[in-house]
Amino acid sequence: MTRRASQNPQRRERRGHRPAGLGGDRVEGRQAVRELLLAGNRRVHEVLVAASSSKTSQRPSGIMAEILDLAAELRVPIKELSRAKFDNIAVTEAPQGVIANAAPLVVHDLADLVRNVSGGVPFLLVLDGVTDPVNVGAALRTAECAGVTGVVLARHRAAHVTPSAAKAAAGAIEHISMALVGGIPNALARLSELGVWTVGLDIAASNTIYEVSVSSEAVALVVGSEGRGLSRLARQRCDVVAAIPLFGRLNSLNAAAATAVGCFEIARNRLRN
Amino acid sequence: MTRRASQNPQRRERRGHRPAGLGGDRVEGRQAVRELLLAGNRRVHEVLVAASSSKTSQRPSGIMAEILDLAAELRVPIKELSRAKFDNIAVTEAPQGVIANAAPLVVHDLADLVRNVSGGVPFLLVLDGVTDPVNVGAALRTAECAGVTGVVLARHRAAHVTPSAAKAAAGAIEHISMALVGGIPNALARLSELGVWTVGLDIAASNTIYEVSVSSEAVALVVGSEGRGLSRLARQRCDVVAAIPLFGRLNSLNAAAATAVGCFEIARNRLRN
Repeated sequence: MTRRASQNPQRRERRGHRPAGLGGDRVEGRQAVRELLLAGNRRVHEVLVAASSSKTSQRPSGIMAEILDLAAELRVPIKELSRAKFDNIAVTEAPQGVIANAAPLVVHDLADLVRNVSGGVPFLLVLDGVTDPVNVGAALRTAECAGVTGVVLARHRAAHVTPSAAKAAAGAIEHISMALVGGIPNALARLSELGVWTVGLDIAASNTIYEVSVSSEAVALVVGSEGRGLSRLARQRCDVVAAIPLFGRLNSLNAAAATAVGCFEIARNRLRN
Repeated sequence: MTRRASQNPQRRERRGHRPAGLGGDRVEGRQAVRELLLAGNRRVHEVLVAASSSKTSQRPSGIMAEILDLAAELRVPIKELSRAKFDNIAVTEAPQGVIANAAPLVVHDLADLVRNVSGGVPFLLVLDGVTDPVNVGAALRTAECAGVTGVVLARHRAAHVTPSAAKAAAGAIEHISMALVGGIPNALARLSELGVWTVGLDIAASNTIYEVSVSSEAVALVVGSEGRGLSRLARQRCDVVAAIPLFGRLNSLNAAAATAVGCFEIARNRLRN
């Protein structure tokens, strides 16, 4: 391994030990840290701030000031670090001068995701083998905005809530319940038993997502990996598979973009109810 | 600046000189390089391959084999570099063992984007101050998939087609015509004169995108920056502004996600025609 590679924070993240649970204990970036403090759903051990970000302007302003106020209010220790020390601790590409260390995310049972939905009908997102943490984080943010109430991730061969995922999620992880499952096909079978209608995105499907009607039932959108799409078994276990029609020359959407289009199409359907 | 920062390829990209035009002359990543060669719209000077990617398996397979076949067919020189040399040249985070150096992208006039649309009605995407190259690239990929025929970028204070943008675009830059404009508000006024209906995404708008009917007319979707949304002047110049309704606790979508939802909602409208 070259020296540059070993010093690259993204690669450092990939090399790191996989936590047993969902992760989420390291949160970097202003939006993600603010949302962590605002939500108040888990213990925040400390907030680390890069020295320069409070020195360039005399007093921190905007979202950074809000973060410091929130941390003080919640009696979370704030530590100011030199820029060099901060950069050395940061794992993501652009932590925007702020890092929080917090209790890891709670892992929920699949059944909890279906039963304990505050205010309404479950709307789940199932990620089948999405391995890029930034894509997972982007999908979580979009899903939260579309009203998704729970997310299902595979325990193995899939990205969990790494620092890069947490940053891209911009706080969505504080509001969405998440389950980790041994295998996606079994989880889909279990969701069917629990009364959830499972809709898989599949570019080869004969129906389009615009023909799927899911206005009032519990629903789970199943999105496959960037390269290969849904696994064969996962596709078979879905109640219906549907394509996002493409109108250009490229033959696939990025997983986060497919999640955006799929989730908001379901949200639009549910609006009519 | 610490040594790590200076050796970080993403930061190296940001520090680099801004080319006068759109950029796009450096293409990294397998999908992006394959699409560059397949499209055949611009001259490719050379393809650089990391040695290990052809040594780990005896013969390159899949998309890498396709790239090498295409390059040979087009008489594009292929150079195999040691992994260390390749890593040193690469600018993006994960170039996947392949880099192409090509002629820069052609900059089109705004009027060309409206007049020279092969097979139909113009469908444009206007990015107002999106500064993250990966977001620009992701937006271009999604836009191409939704059938967008042309993209308008601001010459200043906005990301162009850097290597990171080209990689995230996964080949979309080979198929979409792009214009660079001095200011977005003026460009919107000019588009109106050219008969294009301009639709701005704005979280504060009273109409939703589901109420905007754009099935048959020339249309431009205008998407604002990650932090601040549309500029005041750009918002004023749009024929209509519309919100993507959000159903969660977070108050904004990432720019690439908003582009995905907006572009595919317009695509769905046009399907009915």
